[in-house]
Amino acid sequence: MSDDPTAGQAAWPIELADVSAARDRITPHLAVTPLRQYPELDAAAGGGIEILVKHENHHPTNSFKVRNAFSALTALREPERRRGVIAGTRGNHGQGLAFAGRALGIPVTVCVPHGNVADKDRAMRGYGAEVIEGGQDYDDAAAEADRLARERGLTLVHSTNNREVLAGAGTITLEALEQDSSFEAVVMAIGGGSQAVGALTVLRALQPDVAVYGVQAEGAPAVYESWRAGQAVTLPDARTFADGIATRSAYHMTLPALRAGLADFVTVTDDEIGTALRLLLSTTHNLVEGAGAAGLAGLLKLGGVLAGRRVLIVLSGGNIAQPMLRKLLNEQH
Amino acid sequence: MSDDPTAGQAAWPIELADVSAARDRITPHLAVTPLRQYPELDAAAGGGIEILVKHENHHPTNSFKVRNAFSALTALREPERRRGVIAGTRGNHGQGLAFAGRALGIPVTVCVPHGNVADKDRAMRGYGAEVIEGGQDYDDAAAEADRLARERGLTLVHSTNNREVLAGAGTITLEALEQDSSFEAVVMAIGGGSQAVGALTVLRALQPDVAVYGVQAEGAPAVYESWRAGQAVTLPDARTFADGIATRSAYHMTLPALRAGLADFVTVTDDEIGTALRLLLSTTHNLVEGAGAAGLAGLLKLGGVLAGRRVLIVLSGGNIAQPMLRKLLNEQH
Repeated sequence: MSDDPTAGQAAWPIELADVSAARDRITPHLAVTPLRQYPELDAAAGGGIEILVKHENHHPTNSFKVRNAFSALTALREPERRRGVIAGTRGNHGQGLAFAGRALGIPVTVCVPHGNVADKDRAMRGYGAEVIEGGQDYDDAAAEADRLARERGLTLVHSTNNREVLAGAGTITLEALEQDSSFEAVVMAIGGGSQAVGALTVLRALQPDVAVYGVQAEGAPAVYESWRAGQAVTLPDARTFADGIATRSAYHMTLPALRAGLADFVTVTDDEIGTALRLLLSTTHNLVEGAGAAGLAGLLKLGGVLAGRRVLIVLSGGNIAQPMLRKLLNEQH
Repeated sequence: MSDDPTAGQAAWPIELADVSAARDRITPHLAVTPLRQYPELDAAAGGGIEILVKHENHHPTNSFKVRNAFSALTALREPERRRGVIAGTRGNHGQGLAFAGRALGIPVTVCVPHGNVADKDRAMRGYGAEVIEGGQDYDDAAAEADRLARERGLTLVHSTNNREVLAGAGTITLEALEQDSSFEAVVMAIGGGSQAVGALTVLRALQPDVAVYGVQAEGAPAVYESWRAGQAVTLPDARTFADGIATRSAYHMTLPALRAGLADFVTVTDDEIGTALRLLLSTTHNLVEGAGAAGLAGLLKLGGVLAGRRVLIVLSGGNIAQPMLRKLLNEQH
């Protein structure tokens, strides 16, 4: 993609210094998550691939989004903190904000689509957030948050189009490099793209030879299609059980950097995500949600390209609803 | 139990100083595990109980046993380290030893019963341990380890009858106290009793008003029966899916302390353990094995006794086999 007109400096919404600053602000609030290897997982992947697993599922709220939340909320000025923040969410971004808001004494309001996973709504309310239902999917909820932010004078913390959010997500890779800088490739699930853009930002500054691959669900390929087309594509729906990456559009703050930086981009079916999820259960005994298994699904899809290399994947979250987990375990074949 | 002849100083196999020393030896190797609260879990438990959840399932090898292993292996002298160690195990103790042995360069041999969970055997081999199958259950495997220790000149690291193992398990409670000393009761699953004796040792020295409750599976109640009877009872079998606490006998190094220190002891059915496991899945999104859910099952059974109190439970491990998890999710009622 080096002939891409967006590939220049202008493509990058944040720099390493932003990620480092986010790291400093987050450190008092969040423990370093483990980076582990599982011989059984490597054996199952085959091809001599050595997999480094970053356990973002170990965070409070069980997802990396709590990094993004602490990064965004600790960057607010005092008047903004007092009035509070709002965001559209399917759950993980909202849980992160609710948790961080409670820790920092900042009021949090979240907008979720109708029929959102009840577990996630209860968890957000449990952390003290106001939860407002509206619309059919994430994009509708995000639009409602946008409207209410203006109406109520709240600060909108978009789950992707926010520099502090991107910097927070970048701390995953910065932390992983400090733990073990030997990886030669990264495979990351892409919903809005905060994790991947964070990784690209850190790696282009510190280890530019590391290849970053993106993964989306075949039934929710808006960013993938946009990346291929070179312009933002919006799709009518998003069909995947991996709700953490079920977005219908690409985002202006991440698409140019994904275009400039990703080595490649693949899609995976829900079956492939389910297989990866079960493999993570049996080899690491960690519970992940669909989005949290998509990185491994992508790694398995890329296969030969990664043969013999050390590859970082991120278990980005573990918030899967129990009926879905039951369904996936019963589908084993 | 204050009229018990074993209730004196002689009942205690270790002291706080042993636990503190183990803590110092372990610290370079293991991160502090999170101590968390989940509003949804508290709401489900009812009675105004506030539950502090100690996440031992976040350790490498997914269980607290890795503490015991590092405690035991770092206490060895050089000739013992060179020859190596051996132990009988159903899995978690062996995985802990294999992991710690690899980290410290100490050869590890483990004896497992025939038909042991294949996941666990593969994990131990993955960490470089020699795995030997023999006998029908944990007690048989432990006897085989005992025999081979003498035959091969290896150091036996018993999963319970070992002072450094007990001191390692005590670090769970010492660490929890440093994180939040506000808990008024502890409910712990008992297999051999290392966790509970470790907790009692720490709490009698630092917070003697904290009540410690023991929990066993109704189908594997050897320690419970022994505790009631005042003498070690061995049972013909151990029937529970919670293999981490499926022992057939009480242990000489822990029974007197359990007699002297436990506020009470309850048994729970496999159904109750399954219910607790599903509740932990839906409220904390953490995967636990049967033994890891037994503490919560006991808390729910104790119910009214704990009303309005802050209670520590330990998610002791997460190594559940996938077919068992599927079965438990399909049993939801």
